[in-house]
Amino acid sequence: MPDTISFARGAPSLDIVDVEGLKAAAAAAFDEDAAGTTAYGTSVGYVPLRNWLAERHGVQPENVLVTNGSMQADAFLFDELVSSGDAVIVEKPTYDRTLLSLKGRGADVRMVSLASDGIDTDELRALLESGVRPTLAHIIPNFQNPAGYTLSLEKRHALLALAAEYGFTIFEDDPYVAIRFTGEQLPTMLELDEGKGNVVYASSFSKTVCPGIRVGYLVGAADTIKAIAGRATNTYISPNQVAQSIVYRFCVGGGLDRSIATVKAALAERVAALTAALDRELPEASYVAPEGGYFMWVSLPEGTDVAQLFTAAGEHGVTFVKGTDFLLEGGENTLRLAYSGTPVAQVEEGIKRLAAAYRSLPAAV
Amino acid sequence: MPDTISFARGAPSLDIVDVEGLKAAAAAAFDEDAAGTTAYGTSVGYVPLRNWLAERHGVQPENVLVTNGSMQADAFLFDELVSSGDAVIVEKPTYDRTLLSLKGRGADVRMVSLASDGIDTDELRALLESGVRPTLAHIIPNFQNPAGYTLSLEKRHALLALAAEYGFTIFEDDPYVAIRFTGEQLPTMLELDEGKGNVVYASSFSKTVCPGIRVGYLVGAADTIKAIAGRATNTYISPNQVAQSIVYRFCVGGGLDRSIATVKAALAERVAALTAALDRELPEASYVAPEGGYFMWVSLPEGTDVAQLFTAAGEHGVTFVKGTDFLLEGGENTLRLAYSGTPVAQVEEGIKRLAAAYRSLPAAV
Repeated sequence: MPDTISFARGAPSLDIVDVEGLKAAAAAAFDEDAAGTTAYGTSVGYVPLRNWLAERHGVQPENVLVTNGSMQADAFLFDELVSSGDAVIVEKPTYDRTLLSLKGRGADVRMVSLASDGIDTDELRALLESGVRPTLAHIIPNFQNPAGYTLSLEKRHALLALAAEYGFTIFEDDPYVAIRFTGEQLPTMLELDEGKGNVVYASSFSKTVCPGIRVGYLVGAADTIKAIAGRATNTYISPNQVAQSIVYRFCVGGGLDRSIATVKAALAERVAALTAALDRELPEASYVAPEGGYFMWVSLPEGTDVAQLFTAAGEHGVTFVKGTDFLLEGGENTLRLAYSGTPVAQVEEGIKRLAAAYRSLPAAV
Repeated sequence: MPDTISFARGAPSLDIVDVEGLKAAAAAAFDEDAAGTTAYGTSVGYVPLRNWLAERHGVQPENVLVTNGSMQADAFLFDELVSSGDAVIVEKPTYDRTLLSLKGRGADVRMVSLASDGIDTDELRALLESGVRPTLAHIIPNFQNPAGYTLSLEKRHALLALAAEYGFTIFEDDPYVAIRFTGEQLPTMLELDEGKGNVVYASSFSKTVCPGIRVGYLVGAADTIKAIAGRATNTYISPNQVAQSIVYRFCVGGGLDRSIATVKAALAERVAALTAALDRELPEASYVAPEGGYFMWVSLPEGTDVAQLFTAAGEHGVTFVKGTDFLLEGGENTLRLAYSGTPVAQVEEGIKRLAAAYRSLPAAV
């Protein structure tokens, strides 16, 4: 058992990465398309992968741009659509790097409460009716980071209606979509929008192939994609062709489907272990068990000081991310547990340590 | 023979890329360090490659940052050091993407004449004495793009003295350094500066491994590197780990040295063919034969209209980049010939076509 068990990092443990499959895909990339794999491409991405993604999403290639990881895609999109002072809607809580990135651009970040079925669309409507005019709403619809919650179909429709009525773009940030291990797949807002241009969609291969491959992508209106492709050309000429060619071979060779099956099975088992351990060791914790993805949000009784808990947890050999990191204010009794990097045995031991840390706090009853 | 022979693109032909070596390096990457290759890294780059680069440049790892190609490194450095309105020195002519990138940031771009032994340091001194206070001087010291010229040792010292006296940073942009096929290697300004912090150095593996691998790097003062690492974290978390791990194995396995030898031999042969063909077919052309790199700058008699020549060349089945693309003004009788992508047989035929296009111009005598 490691000295410190980490529930902090949203990254897969090596046992659920198909290393042999990647090695074979790399060999195929150099064998099957040596020229395309080794040469400069253009900023829209490796053409076979771009075409494959377009087909997968039922759009044209001109609607797709492949990037060096989806965070790079986010950065380009924010550069394109968000100016200093612009109102931007985000979920409360949301991904800490998104918060940082928007604050760094001087955006007027407006957090709207997140429920276990997604962003509170009534609260958002009230905010819009009060006169706030966002350029963008950043939404992580499936197995949200950090909460693990999923946006309901009803709310997907409601968001699209608000976007059309108030003229903002929905940035559908969807890296976890393929990792659903229970419940039914919902249509993306990109699909539901039917090409009306209210949605820019981002996803990545970090959770289905591996993070080190750094391949993400955007799907959106052709003019938006073209503008972002111009930014990409001026930033790096083309995204990594070797990595994209490997991903393409991994996908078409069946590696992607196999890898998704492996990841889903492992993570479902970890969630079961995590919730069982929490119920047993730390019944004060409340949570909604995620239907997919990497993360679970945990609330402890009001008055718990998560900063104190974090310090105590470190002393007990377990770590996580404080809920306060995902919020502009509040969340002092919350935390995010990532189970993507922790095999089942570590999950159980880690929750024992977390419970011991909680019991060691002066404020705990 | 292709319909159009291209002297336009600064990219290697596939025959000088070690595809089998890359394939073996990729297999080694997944075999030898599956965890490091597939996981997120940090924004400073894949640790073994960063350490290898530090040793190669005689610096500490904290002085090195690996990026997704060196143009991304340029972009970060410009974001860090160049604000709108800042004076920036560039060579006249210089790389067109650098010009675009600086103009896009609102820099006050000051071009200083380039001679066959490098930037005119007397002209630069006069500009500085006139009161211009640049934040940065962008210099491509070896086999400059577009001119193919190399900065003399004397001028390297002169530039460093000016940088120290007037307090600007030299951005030593050195992607071609390893591709010297004649003459003696000169010390980098980074080395000559002996850690005084007046130089930030950039290079890449695009010319020695392949462009599609998109691995570049910066070497500079630890505080500058740290600041840029922060920007990189917020942009893409980490550069491509798979690609860096492949490059690292390619380097330590001897592939890099073999590849450099292949490229040097091929390009030396192409330069010999290019100059012989020009002397024979187009004796009006003047040039300085490069001692390395990808490019040769060609001047035609005063009064030649390179835009007309470009059109005529297209009709004759040959293409190049107009000298005017590398300048803010002037250069109407100049062009850049890239020989990196044209095997010898194409070089000879291409120059015949270029000469025929030149003869077809109304202005030609």
